[in-house]
Amino acid sequence: MTDKLWGGRFDEDITQDVLDYTLTVDVDVRLVFADLWQDIAHVLMLGAGGIVPGEVARALLGSLLQLWEQNERGELRLRPELEDVHFNIEQMVIEELGREIGGHLQTARSRNDQVSTDTRMYLRRVQLDAVAANLDLIGVLLAFPEEELLAILPGYTHSQAAQPISVAFWKTAHASMLLRDVRRLRDAFGRTDESPLGACALAGTSFPLDRELTARLLGFGRVLSHALDATSARDYLIESAAAFAIGGNTLSRMAEEVVMWSGHEYSLVEVSDAYATGSSIMPQKKNPVVAELARGRAGRTAGTLVQLLTMAKGVTLGYSCDLQEDKPYLWHAIDAYLSTLRITAGQTRGLRFDSARGEELCWDNFSTATELANHLVAERGLAFREAHHVSGALVSALLKRGATLRDTAAGAEILAGLGHPVAEPVLARIFAPRNAVAGYVSPGGTSPASVGAVRDELNEAVAGHAAWLDETRRRIGDAQAAAFDAAREVAGGADLGKALDRILPTLNGGLS
Amino acid sequence: MTDKLWGGRFDEDITQDVLDYTLTVDVDVRLVFADLWQDIAHVLMLGAGGIVPGEVARALLGSLLQLWEQNERGELRLRPELEDVHFNIEQMVIEELGREIGGHLQTARSRNDQVSTDTRMYLRRVQLDAVAANLDLIGVLLAFPEEELLAILPGYTHSQAAQPISVAFWKTAHASMLLRDVRRLRDAFGRTDESPLGACALAGTSFPLDRELTARLLGFGRVLSHALDATSARDYLIESAAAFAIGGNTLSRMAEEVVMWSGHEYSLVEVSDAYATGSSIMPQKKNPVVAELARGRAGRTAGTLVQLLTMAKGVTLGYSCDLQEDKPYLWHAIDAYLSTLRITAGQTRGLRFDSARGEELCWDNFSTATELANHLVAERGLAFREAHHVSGALVSALLKRGATLRDTAAGAEILAGLGHPVAEPVLARIFAPRNAVAGYVSPGGTSPASVGAVRDELNEAVAGHAAWLDETRRRIGDAQAAAFDAAREVAGGADLGKALDRILPTLNGGLS
Amino acid sequence: MTDKLWGGRFDEDITQDVLDYTLTVDVDVRLVFADLWQDIAHVLMLGAGGIVPGEVARALLGSLLQLWEQNERGELRLRPELEDVHFNIEQMVIEELGREIGGHLQTARSRNDQVSTDTRMYLRRVQLDAVAANLDLIGVLLAFPEEELLAILPGYTHSQAAQPISVAFWKTAHASMLLRDVRRLRDAFGRTDESPLGACALAGTSFPLDRELTARLLGFGRVLSHALDATSARDYLIESAAAFAIGGNTLSRMAEEVVMWSGHEYSLVEVSDAYATGSSIMPQKKNPVVAELARGRAGRTAGTLVQLLTMAKGVTLGYSCDLQEDKPYLWHAIDAYLSTLRITAGQTRGLRFDSARGEELCWDNFSTATELANHLVAERGLAFREAHHVSGALVSALLKRGATLRDTAAGAEILAGLGHPVAEPVLARIFAPRNAVAGYVSPGGTSPASVGAVRDELNEAVAGHAAWLDETRRRIGDAQAAAFDAAREVAGGADLGKALDRILPTLNGGLS
Amino acid sequence: MTDKLWGGRFDEDITQDVLDYTLTVDVDVRLVFADLWQDIAHVLMLGAGGIVPGEVARALLGSLLQLWEQNERGELRLRPELEDVHFNIEQMVIEELGREIGGHLQTARSRNDQVSTDTRMYLRRVQLDAVAANLDLIGVLLAFPEEELLAILPGYTHSQAAQPISVAFWKTAHASMLLRDVRRLRDAFGRTDESPLGACALAGTSFPLDRELTARLLGFGRVLSHALDATSARDYLIESAAAFAIGGNTLSRMAEEVVMWSGHEYSLVEVSDAYATGSSIMPQKKNPVVAELARGRAGRTAGTLVQLLTMAKGVTLGYSCDLQEDKPYLWHAIDAYLSTLRITAGQTRGLRFDSARGEELCWDNFSTATELANHLVAERGLAFREAHHVSGALVSALLKRGATLRDTAAGAEILAGLGHPVAEPVLARIFAPRNAVAGYVSPGGTSPASVGAVRDELNEAVAGHAAWLDETRRRIGDAQAAAFDAAREVAGGADLGKALDRILPTLNGGLS
Repeated sequence: MTDKLWGGRFDEDITQDVLDYTLTVDVDVRLVFADLWQDIAHVLMLGAGGIVPGEVARALLGSLLQLWEQNERGELRLRPELEDVHFNIEQMVIEELGREIGGHLQTARSRNDQVSTDTRMYLRRVQLDAVAANLDLIGVLLAFPEEELLAILPGYTHSQAAQPISVAFWKTAHASMLLRDVRRLRDAFGRTDESPLGACALAGTSFPLDRELTARLLGFGRVLSHALDATSARDYLIESAAAFAIGGNTLSRMAEEVVMWSGHEYSLVEVSDAYATGSSIMPQKKNPVVAELARGRAGRTAGTLVQLLTMAKGVTLGYSCDLQEDKPYLWHAIDAYLSTLRITAGQTRGLRFDSARGEELCWDNFSTATELANHLVAERGLAFREAHHVSGALVSALLKRGATLRDTAAGAEILAGLGHPVAEPVLARIFAPRNAVAGYVSPGGTSPASVGAVRDELNEAVAGHAAWLDETRRRIGDAQAAAFDAAREVAGGADLGKALDRILPTLNGGLS
Repeated sequence: MTDKLWGGRFDEDITQDVLDYTLTVDVDVRLVFADLWQDIAHVLMLGAGGIVPGEVARALLGSLLQLWEQNERGELRLRPELEDVHFNIEQMVIEELGREIGGHLQTARSRNDQVSTDTRMYLRRVQLDAVAANLDLIGVLLAFPEEELLAILPGYTHSQAAQPISVAFWKTAHASMLLRDVRRLRDAFGRTDESPLGACALAGTSFPLDRELTARLLGFGRVLSHALDATSARDYLIESAAAFAIGGNTLSRMAEEVVMWSGHEYSLVEVSDAYATGSSIMPQKKNPVVAELARGRAGRTAGTLVQLLTMAKGVTLGYSCDLQEDKPYLWHAIDAYLSTLRITAGQTRGLRFDSARGEELCWDNFSTATELANHLVAERGLAFREAHHVSGALVSALLKRGATLRDTAAGAEILAGLGHPVAEPVLARIFAPRNAVAGYVSPGGTSPASVGAVRDELNEAVAGHAAWLDETRRRIGDAQAAAFDAAREVAGGADLGKALDRILPTLNGGLS
Repeated sequence: MTDKLWGGRFDEDITQDVLDYTLTVDVDVRLVFADLWQDIAHVLMLGAGGIVPGEVARALLGSLLQLWEQNERGELRLRPELEDVHFNIEQMVIEELGREIGGHLQTARSRNDQVSTDTRMYLRRVQLDAVAANLDLIGVLLAFPEEELLAILPGYTHSQAAQPISVAFWKTAHASMLLRDVRRLRDAFGRTDESPLGACALAGTSFPLDRELTARLLGFGRVLSHALDATSARDYLIESAAAFAIGGNTLSRMAEEVVMWSGHEYSLVEVSDAYATGSSIMPQKKNPVVAELARGRAGRTAGTLVQLLTMAKGVTLGYSCDLQEDKPYLWHAIDAYLSTLRITAGQTRGLRFDSARGEELCWDNFSTATELANHLVAERGLAFREAHHVSGALVSALLKRGATLRDTAAGAEILAGLGHPVAEPVLARIFAPRNAVAGYVSPGGTSPASVGAVRDELNEAVAGHAAWLDETRRRIGDAQAAAFDAAREVAGGADLGKALDRILPTLNGGLS
Repeated sequence: MTDKLWGGRFDEDITQDVLDYTLTVDVDVRLVFADLWQDIAHVLMLGAGGIVPGEVARALLGSLLQLWEQNERGELRLRPELEDVHFNIEQMVIEELGREIGGHLQTARSRNDQVSTDTRMYLRRVQLDAVAANLDLIGVLLAFPEEELLAILPGYTHSQAAQPISVAFWKTAHASMLLRDVRRLRDAFGRTDESPLGACALAGTSFPLDRELTARLLGFGRVLSHALDATSARDYLIESAAAFAIGGNTLSRMAEEVVMWSGHEYSLVEVSDAYATGSSIMPQKKNPVVAELARGRAGRTAGTLVQLLTMAKGVTLGYSCDLQEDKPYLWHAIDAYLSTLRITAGQTRGLRFDSARGEELCWDNFSTATELANHLVAERGLAFREAHHVSGALVSALLKRGATLRDTAAGAEILAGLGHPVAEPVLARIFAPRNAVAGYVSPGGTSPASVGAVRDELNEAVAGHAAWLDETRRRIGDAQAAAFDAAREVAGGADLGKALDRILPTLNGGLS
């Protein structure tokens, strides 16, 4: 007969290859902190409710605290033959305390609610880290020097120069986009930060659990009440993967710009040497490898999202092993997303823009031809579509001469021929990229005042997110501190009820 | 020379196959209402700001209102050779008013901000429809009769019967899950309901736009300030696709249960004839085709999500035609998701559960063996792991005898042999599925009180969402009514400024 | 009671919304030709085997031929209330001939084998069209004029100029890649070109079918024997979607190059006006919209692949309605892929490369620095890694002076300082991009001889594929002609057996 | 200045986080064998062509053979700070031989062709392993005992019992499907088994390489000529991922059947204890965890496919670091696919079917109602559609009485009432599931003769694949042996040219 914890009715043990196929200890390493913390909260609750005797609770807490210390020292090793983190820890406790005491640990709990609790505890930490990393990157983008308000770059549509913009305008654009990634992470956090603990296998239990207490001891924002939902749901996790994938896409777009613009042909930006490598065969190369990887790594987050959607499609409610597949690729996506966020911040800090080159390209690319159309509308009363036609005819004629907007003499001559004479000095003013950038004064436009206003708006949003982040991390940290304080007191001999009474006021009292 | 609206500098027209490849009129049909409404709001703003003369604005509004009426009558046809909805409408206006007047329509606007505005206006309507359809389905699930609180079903984990549950518990589980889909849709709505109008091509404009005015006239919640972000962003749309994909997955899981449980082997539920079809060759079949399709149709929402992520990956900021690919598959996903939500509500309304069968399966499946373990813990003070082992040994012994938990005599004998005697009547009470369901009194468990509490909690959430939905639809509807009222007044000869002053107080004054 | 063809045991009909949700007539429009052809082949076989009486067969064939003519004239309309193409055609036959005769059509067949047969017949046609479209595009690429063998472009790695290449080298690279897409399509064709007809519902039938006969009449390469596999399999279709997705990716990479290189910054290529459009607000723009769309449209093929994988994941064998989802997105992917192939051929034909610009960029970008390293290895006996270091030091020093490889005086001076003196004229020869291109004489390299050899190799492969394509199309066309000839003879009064005997020798006799 | 191998022109080294972000040594561990073998083949070719002096070649080979031995002993460790396997090995050689000798290793080669060569060498091995694992599983399926030809199971469509089948029919169905997965793997192998070595960075080289020689020494089937294609292509790898994803889907469908059918409600099959686990809280459970995981693990292969498609979308030709992302997820997919194949074989070997239960379900489920329709067609000359209607009316009437097809008295009475009397004994014969299974004699049907014929057909295909597998593995193994033999001889002092001459005849002479 198998000696597995669940082995009561089995005649034959699983083979090594089946164990290899099913075990999760390599993945669960990231969950040890959560599992132990959860065990402690669970035992405190069991003790407070009289579901396990006080002395049993005390012994369990003592053993769990030892394992915590062991883990903090990096000495706790999960044994593959015990399948997962839950069985490992239960077995360690049983080895320490014997089955009569240690066998109480799993009372009124199942691996089904337990693993979802662990996963949520780890995932919410990751989500907060991702918020923080995004805010850092946004901070780098918004900390542009004032001169970048009029440092000219070509603005592109269809990868063709369209209208001049500024470095500050470009940076605030990405900051504005990233702030939505932050919001999505916060929304995903809201659906992760719910306690499934106490749902048991799928249907709850006849023991009088205090699920709100464990939720508070684990720093959760609320209890996820329905036991079948709590054990079956993976949408919170797929949603997180979607947030990572969308965030990965945001970063891939910036990366594409950095890769392209740092090429000789654009020469608009240069990454610092620390973010580039050379070629083993072509000595002249300076490859922006970090940006290239950031672009390609968006595949990992997208692929993980599909992996999770595929996994969960058409799976009946109630835990199935399919759902165990919720972690390995997600871990990879987490690493890819967080590292890309952080390295992009570092890379962005070191970007050197060449705005003289940018201005030159704007002149060469007819980027301010629209300004003539707008001038004819505003000053001559032409309908926009008429003015657009005149402007287009000018460009066409200049191109045929091999000229650019710099050739104001040619321009004035052509315009006169078209019946819309504009004086050369006026043309020179109209067509200057810097004037265009300064002149797009509409809200959200490129003018320094518009960009300044957007920056203020974004900075305000950043401040709000940062405050929420601090508060949320503090709430979770306080819960952890309080739970461990109480556990240590009880393990040291204090009364469990009194220990809880002491710490409860410091916890998130009003679960939402 | 081409006569395209943008044709100023082109020598050669595009060929028919290029037009076919690039046109979007078939997709844009869904955007006509939004484009016309947007045109009206834009012209009101241009007139109010003196950017176009009053008489021009009046003429434009008259023409646009005519087109609106035409569209309401189903008589407005988009011409493929005019590429998209924007050029079509501009051309219609120019044909009506001449280029000198009609050519003013596009002043201080680009197709880049225009198409994003249209798409957001349509998408937010869809999101609200999806919220409504989810709330309807949730309403069906929560409207269970009281007797379903103790109508027994097997609860499954690993597709093996685990513990008994009730029909009401199953229905509330899905309702609980669907409510998160509602929240995700609301979150996506929040990032869709922002006005990009006024961003122009990518950089804003030198005309003094009042972007807050147009946002209010279009019923948007706020202005999306940054012009480059406003024209380049597609994350709001990918996020919606993710919400649809996750929602599609939620529905696929319920569908799988209906398909499986309506088979003869389970015989737990029967769909009404209206939701099934027969076989052309096997006359005995009653195939739950709607549930099967609902399960398979989750592929469309997942596939669309990947289509959009692929499209946007690594695309530089500023509009590119890649981004035009944001609509066709999304339209399909919208149709798939909304129709699946609605038909699932209808199907769920007609589900007939067989709880006698459910109870029988629970007896046969040892579904209440855990109850014995819990009994030994609660009444005999055994450690859970010990009790679990005893219970497992009992099941193992019964299986070998070909017996079930119904055989309390056998059960009592075996337990006595294991050194844990339990009297037969006690066993009969412990193992009765109905008692187990009634006994899982923990919060979120199967007991009628727990399910009732969850139902109340969910109903409260539904009420909150319904109120938000009503208010949001009213806000948008009011804006539309006001914008058209003002336009009609002006077209009829009233002063534009006064007309705006009259309606402005009825609009969403404080954009968030 | 419902009057559906399958309605024997149903009390209640499906409602309109259920019909809308389940019907496939809009999608099935593409299958009408296949369904009618299949019907004819099936009836010929039934008649030949005596499974239906000769006069019944004659009448059925007459009716089917009429429907065929009607469909050829564009007058055959599928009625949505009859769900799908199979029921529509059966109903039309029954309406024409009455139930006693028409009711024989579906003998020994099920919609399950029927729909897979139709789909395969349509899909194999698409696969052949895709092969043809690829071969056309490859032909355009390989038909480069001889001068393009030394028309210089920068070759990029990491989006940084690496080494000079030629236009002919670039074109043959894409041709080489596309030939693998052709092979994949052929492989997918091989697994599509199998006849499931005769598998019936899932298990075969007790009627003595001649499955090889129908397979030959439908031009299939072989019979897919196993009835459960034949009705359940969708892998052939997912594989096709994978081939389309990979092909779409191949095209997206070429599209990205065209988009980027046609921008002012690169100025390496210009698309013809027919493949570009202008801007409604920026008159100077010439946007390569076809290439942009081709790049973004890769999302459709990728998304469809995921849709299909999701659909089929975890579905039990035997037809389920999930599998009905195999067509709508696939149709979209087919249209996207075929149109992108064809329009890319047209665009490629009109590409104008600027090799003077290409050569200039090579000089500016140190693209031939490797040549110095190779020179030092070949002529001076340095280890490559040593030579690489010298070459790198030269580039670094030149960059610091703001010089390029054109500055042979500076180059010679620096090299002398590094202890590796090379004479100026030698340097000028080494660094000339044209010399480098001509000098990469290794097989597959850029030298005209190497590119010429590759072109010959590719042309040979193209010829092989073209021959296969012709032969395969002929085989299928012959089968169709023969089947219809026989059917017309029989309908006109000829003996069925004799008619078959006459045509059989013209058919693919030895199914593989 | 950086001391990186490519560091000639860099002032600043990359930081640790950049190194962490870019390094691949953890992934490259699987490529060490390929990189060393490749190095040896490359050096032999360089020596044979006089591109490096004979003594240099001898020294390099000696050093490489030492590293090979070290790796065989498990003692070769890659150092992360050296980025990847190529730099690691070059550095080891340089440390051993000094830069003047060791620096020759990378002559006429780039990491760009090198990494693709390594990856193809590893991937082709995996593909062959996957072919072997599929053939093993197919072998298990085809090795059914004769009695399983009439061991009855219900055949399902729409997850509703449709017609009876046999265990042997079910097994051969999956075998038939898996054989297409084998074919796809072979096709993917054909496009993997091409040598990119000698393409160098992207454009070939001026050194007179013998690319056919290295291809033969590495056991490749042919040279992939075009240098830009050879370094840029990733389609071969995405295609492999697609083959894995489709194969994963095939396995997920079988897994779903095993999960469902092993539940109490079906009770059609039981997995051996070794492939199941119990529950930590519910002692009665026997969970088919391996099958559940196999079903869910299809997500990994699907997700990886999307990761790769996303990575490669829109990437310009010539190596970019995006392409470095081709390995990590692919490695995961490989492990998931191979382990699922192998464990499914083990699980399938131990499946115990309950055909008595299967037969009973067929009776209960009206699975043979079609037989009556066929009888009326064959014996009474009814049109199929008429007969179908009669049969359906019978089922409907029986259902209303709560009866089944077993009730032949009721059946006969109802049929008489419908005007189609059939004698009770005839009905009993018609409706017996075993008779139906035996009676579906059409090719590919369930009759023992049909299944036997299919088995023979499949076994023949298996034999063909097995022969190809053996031959292919032998060809590659022979090449490896020969290359190392020659290298050892040369390192031991033999003449390089003579050593090559001796082994060349043993190699794949006629590359295809």
